[in-house]
Amino acid sequence: MSQPRGPLSQLRRGHEELVLGLLRKHGPLSRGELGKRCGLSRTTLYDILAELVASGAVVTATSQEAPRGRGRPAETLTLNPDAGQAIGIDFARRALHVAAVNLAHEVVGSASEPHDADLPWEERVELAARLVGSLTGSGAGALRLGALDAIGVGVVGVVGSQAAEEDPTVPHPAQVLLRERFGVPVLLDNNTRLAALGEAIWGAAAGGQDVLYLRLSHGVGGGLVVGGSLHRGAYGLSGEFGHITVEPGGAPCDCGGTGCLETVASIRAVLDAFRAAGGRAADVPELVKAVRAGDQAALTLLSGVGARIGEVLAALCNAIGPSVIVIGGELAETGAALVEPVERALHDHVMPVSRHRVSLRRATLGEVAGALGGIALVLHESPLLSRYPGGPDLAEDPIPDKESR
Amino acid sequence: MSQPRGPLSQLRRGHEELVLGLLRKHGPLSRGELGKRCGLSRTTLYDILAELVASGAVVTATSQEAPRGRGRPAETLTLNPDAGQAIGIDFARRALHVAAVNLAHEVVGSASEPHDADLPWEERVELAARLVGSLTGSGAGALRLGALDAIGVGVVGVVGSQAAEEDPTVPHPAQVLLRERFGVPVLLDNNTRLAALGEAIWGAAAGGQDVLYLRLSHGVGGGLVVGGSLHRGAYGLSGEFGHITVEPGGAPCDCGGTGCLETVASIRAVLDAFRAAGGRAADVPELVKAVRAGDQAALTLLSGVGARIGEVLAALCNAIGPSVIVIGGELAETGAALVEPVERALHDHVMPVSRHRVSLRRATLGEVAGALGGIALVLHESPLLSRYPGGPDLAEDPIPDKESR
Repeated sequence: MSQPRGPLSQLRRGHEELVLGLLRKHGPLSRGELGKRCGLSRTTLYDILAELVASGAVVTATSQEAPRGRGRPAETLTLNPDAGQAIGIDFARRALHVAAVNLAHEVVGSASEPHDADLPWEERVELAARLVGSLTGSGAGALRLGALDAIGVGVVGVVGSQAAEEDPTVPHPAQVLLRERFGVPVLLDNNTRLAALGEAIWGAAAGGQDVLYLRLSHGVGGGLVVGGSLHRGAYGLSGEFGHITVEPGGAPCDCGGTGCLETVASIRAVLDAFRAAGGRAADVPELVKAVRAGDQAALTLLSGVGARIGEVLAALCNAIGPSVIVIGGELAETGAALVEPVERALHDHVMPVSRHRVSLRRATLGEVAGALGGIALVLHESPLLSRYPGGPDLAEDPIPDKESR
Repeated sequence: MSQPRGPLSQLRRGHEELVLGLLRKHGPLSRGELGKRCGLSRTTLYDILAELVASGAVVTATSQEAPRGRGRPAETLTLNPDAGQAIGIDFARRALHVAAVNLAHEVVGSASEPHDADLPWEERVELAARLVGSLTGSGAGALRLGALDAIGVGVVGVVGSQAAEEDPTVPHPAQVLLRERFGVPVLLDNNTRLAALGEAIWGAAAGGQDVLYLRLSHGVGGGLVVGGSLHRGAYGLSGEFGHITVEPGGAPCDCGGTGCLETVASIRAVLDAFRAAGGRAADVPELVKAVRAGDQAALTLLSGVGARIGEVLAALCNAIGPSVIVIGGELAETGAALVEPVERALHDHVMPVSRHRVSLRRATLGEVAGALGGIALVLHESPLLSRYPGGPDLAEDPIPDKESR
């Protein structure tokens, strides 16, 4: 899915980074000035520049300043403000979410639309193209599809370099159809893992290098950001927190196991348990209402569910050592009634030396987290856009015209 | 502890890698030939070469071939076979282990010596220097201390970029004393984590990119190799598998918690439980004897301990998705009596889709695993020696004179 990462392609990427970084820092530069600053041979530099211009990332301009001597004004090179845009699409089970960023890594827009779970892939991609099109306005931050760099896509299920379920040589239908439609590389990952990456870059754990994200929804899953990168696991099977056993010999789970966290902490499990306890809630918003009304059965139930979640998180903290844990998904809408018991159990079961070092937070990106994570995937994998927005590089090296917005 | 890793130092490192890779692949090359192949400017290349020659990694030689035209023979550059050697030292609680590799990343020797737990740091470093000295023979693979590149050191306790227990600006005494003694950079990490890295590179999980290592010794701990790199965690607190709760409200643990895996699966815990069950074993070798003699109490005990371990490993597999789990430490000497119940519990509790994907293996490096991991740390962190031995790069790009040994 990604570009090969041998030493030579990494070197090439390093050269592109260097050139783009110089243009970010100094604004327009002539080829000669670039050559002096980057330490590359003329041949290598001109190769790199030709590719950057061909890709639309860099544009040529005639210098506005008067030439020092006689002759024609020097041609300068500058970043193309419309270039390097990236799109993220989350093909969730029953809804589609899209988001887009510009070269400055600013989110220029997002959109969502629900659909039937059995909508065919052709129609999902049509819908995605329409939503992406809705982001292309005429304002300053508008998206120009011609300048698209790549698309990062989240899908449900196992995705990885050696995917467990599918032949990795067969591309996902979303990948094939989007590549046909937009003519750019399409990077793919599991949408819950991408939500983890989104929260670690733009959301509740922004700037965190080691982040654990848990999503409590119809399924229970999550993702790990390890040392600033999305962790996939050897077979694309990481982040399956919902299938950790919490009740040996407990209820059967969709995964084929029994007593998994998902059998206790999914939306269905919680609503079923609430009804069994005499409560009335057809969906999560009704459960949230009951919680807000101080319904004792709801509070007791969530306290028990939270304790189970906290125990699992404590075990994972001892093993992995994240600085931030983010809890997302619809059930997190129950707020403190769930999160406080999680925090208590986490505190009780994490190694004492780690207490107060890990911060538990609610997710902030909502349903577009996966689409934003798709963009982050593009920014990581693309040789043209490999930096984190707001990361240490950009913080030290601000984009000159950022102030004037 | 490590070199700064900004885009520019990464680029520089990439250039050094490129030059060293060309010399590995093609043997001796002239400056002109190197220049043609590497695409760097003359200035950059000569800078890099001057540094590589000054560091002793590369040496100059006069070409043996007749010059094509008139004039003096061309000077060529070649890898220095004695250069870039790295030493690993594991300062365990009651013993010291050292190991060394040459530029070809071959282990040229290792040595161990037990000592009292309260031996002062000055004397430990003296002992280390003596053991390292014992590795310098006069054979072809002998170590020349003058060519030392760096030392990787394992110590007991929390080590990390933001170590929890210690002020990270205060270097560890081993670091200070070794730097004085050898005059080279000293890289430090937790010795159990380094054993994980050692097993992932030279040992039971050689070549594994995602490896979980569990050590069952006086303490219970381990380490994670994630995407081919040692994972430290946000506060240097990863790999604390021994402090995952397995018996809520169980026995008190040295960490301050209760019911931790360590209270069930450490050497002391197992020997105590064996005696409580009427068995007789003063130490692990006696326990191993009992197991081999078919002692039913020992087998039942280890079956229960193994089940607890397997449950913890299954939870971690669902979260992290390693391809290999390595079990080391003295208790692993009990063999199948422990490992089979671990395997059964792992199989029962890991997500069904992940079963048969993760391989459970016993550690193979024994007590020098930590010292070898220290070397791996140097190979990773050093700009001159950043490749894995036997990794895909070297496999595709063999060292020319490797055949003639």
